[in-house]
Amino acid sequence: MKKLINAPEDVVVEALRGMAAAHPQHLRVDTANRIVYRATPAAPGKVALISGGGSGHEPLHGGFVGPGMLDAAIAGEVFTSPVPDQVVEATRRADTGAGVVHIVKNYTGDVMNFEMAAEIAAAETGVEVVSVITDDDVAVQDSLYTAGRRGVGVTVLAEKIAGAAAEQGRPLHEVADVVRRVNENGRSMGMALTSCTVPAAGRPTFDLPEHEMEIGVGIHGEPGRRRVPLAPAKEVAAMLLEPILEDLRTAVGDTKDVIAFVNGMGATPLLELYLMYGEVSALLAKAGVNVVRSLVGPYITSLDMAGCSVTLLRVDDDLVRLWDAPVNTPGLRWGA
Amino acid sequence: MKKLINAPEDVVVEALRGMAAAHPQHLRVDTANRIVYRATPAAPGKVALISGGGSGHEPLHGGFVGPGMLDAAIAGEVFTSPVPDQVVEATRRADTGAGVVHIVKNYTGDVMNFEMAAEIAAAETGVEVVSVITDDDVAVQDSLYTAGRRGVGVTVLAEKIAGAAAEQGRPLHEVADVVRRVNENGRSMGMALTSCTVPAAGRPTFDLPEHEMEIGVGIHGEPGRRRVPLAPAKEVAAMLLEPILEDLRTAVGDTKDVIAFVNGMGATPLLELYLMYGEVSALLAKAGVNVVRSLVGPYITSLDMAGCSVTLLRVDDDLVRLWDAPVNTPGLRWGA
Repeated sequence: MKKLINAPEDVVVEALRGMAAAHPQHLRVDTANRIVYRATPAAPGKVALISGGGSGHEPLHGGFVGPGMLDAAIAGEVFTSPVPDQVVEATRRADTGAGVVHIVKNYTGDVMNFEMAAEIAAAETGVEVVSVITDDDVAVQDSLYTAGRRGVGVTVLAEKIAGAAAEQGRPLHEVADVVRRVNENGRSMGMALTSCTVPAAGRPTFDLPEHEMEIGVGIHGEPGRRRVPLAPAKEVAAMLLEPILEDLRTAVGDTKDVIAFVNGMGATPLLELYLMYGEVSALLAKAGVNVVRSLVGPYITSLDMAGCSVTLLRVDDDLVRLWDAPVNTPGLRWGA
Repeated sequence: MKKLINAPEDVVVEALRGMAAAHPQHLRVDTANRIVYRATPAAPGKVALISGGGSGHEPLHGGFVGPGMLDAAIAGEVFTSPVPDQVVEATRRADTGAGVVHIVKNYTGDVMNFEMAAEIAAAETGVEVVSVITDDDVAVQDSLYTAGRRGVGVTVLAEKIAGAAAEQGRPLHEVADVVRRVNENGRSMGMALTSCTVPAAGRPTFDLPEHEMEIGVGIHGEPGRRRVPLAPAKEVAAMLLEPILEDLRTAVGDTKDVIAFVNGMGATPLLELYLMYGEVSALLAKAGVNVVRSLVGPYITSLDMAGCSVTLLRVDDDLVRLWDAPVNTPGLRWGA
């Protein structure tokens, strides 16, 4: 295993410590509870937005803490849900009195632990919590860690867009509705050229022969739809985009305007991601889909996996305005 | 070779096309000449700042085109200098009448071709060009592609800081002086856990056994100082930082305030880069060096190489203010 780490059991806390050191103007990190907070807490009355999950997907979620996006992010061990106590603590501290939205990626552990935390927070501290689950991955219905579809790229877009809605002062249920709207109108699919290696395991999560790739892979290296021979980027783009578009059109109807997001899995250079984006954007033009905004880069990663995912979010003017609103986090920053 | 590409010979143009599609609000790309320009050219009277070099280091340089940073970036083939004609064209088009600064990384091909281009531009179009070479890599004196030290991480910082100086309206020779000042006060060193693979070659540039790493590696996979057994991040940080600090203190004296930059080589996940930053920042604190600003992420990459580099820039108030000034490019964006 070739990694820039010390002991595998210290990876998460040490990375959080480095993050805190790198972004003193943005973040505060509670390393005991593994929670990332804004350096300057939001003003009273703003709905708090928190998310979290297993580590290994950076910048998700800690890198998205800051004005215009999350109020706090909770880090579990690598690819392992945080425990309810961590989520309760983050919820309690992030609440300004206006309630808290939990954005939870659809994995069995996360859903269970965030649910338990929401109940405890409500019972013990009286904080009103609304949880919204993201499950945008069209690749498979159930998987190794999931009942239903997995939550992937749409989570990044939901955190940005709902973060802007919260910043505008929208009330709890409206902010939660924005997350739901993004999830309902967003679809993703990923692929891997290589496996990732979990530090504690010390060896690749799965075997992927030199001339094959995994289409529909999950962000923890969960199996996808099929294993196929390597193919040109043009064909890879089609393999990811077609199921997304088909699913989106069946579920929510005509898809005219979208935010298109080409995400790197962690070990794929930007050169390749831009090349992939070029293919995705050409296919969308052919399909009569209008890309109104785009995002290209490693935003929801899978440790050192090489590969990418594509997310399309069908948008209306409200969602685009929220996307364009200022954001000031280590991972996404504009207009602020 | 596992890459998200089509034909190896089309990688650069297709990636540029994808970049243009992804950033219509920021960039215009001349794919024939492989030049990235600002979507909105600078106003007359602003000194133009341009840079370029081989592709494969993205977001450097094209991702740093925009207000507060570069006016144009020229892309060569992967790890190959652009030709003089490309540089002449970019120089001619970027000039607003106030002259053009070329920031050139110290590699034989780049230095020669930018020099030739500066002469042609001056002779044929009357544009005043000042070239400044970056050569911040303390690892080796000469190398495969270099007489003298290689230009690496400091180039990113120079483009940002001199970009701000140009935006302030400083005249040609002052902007060039800022680049020189950054280069003189900046030092870097890199390391690789794995080789990179040039698309046209189709196989790794060098062999690096499973239990070894290359300390002092160049951004094209050039050999470094030594090959050593894998070591904990803490020790890797010291191996990179000590030669940098020693060199800096010998050359420019006491080093109190710095911008610290931990750069990813292309295939290293952010989790590891943050962990490395934590180690670097702890060592700097011990050494009595004060980190006033920091940058963590993949900004000057080496295709799919796993590894990182560390850059320290000794700063005064002027350089910090220029660093903090607004920048609005795909690769670096704040305050704008």
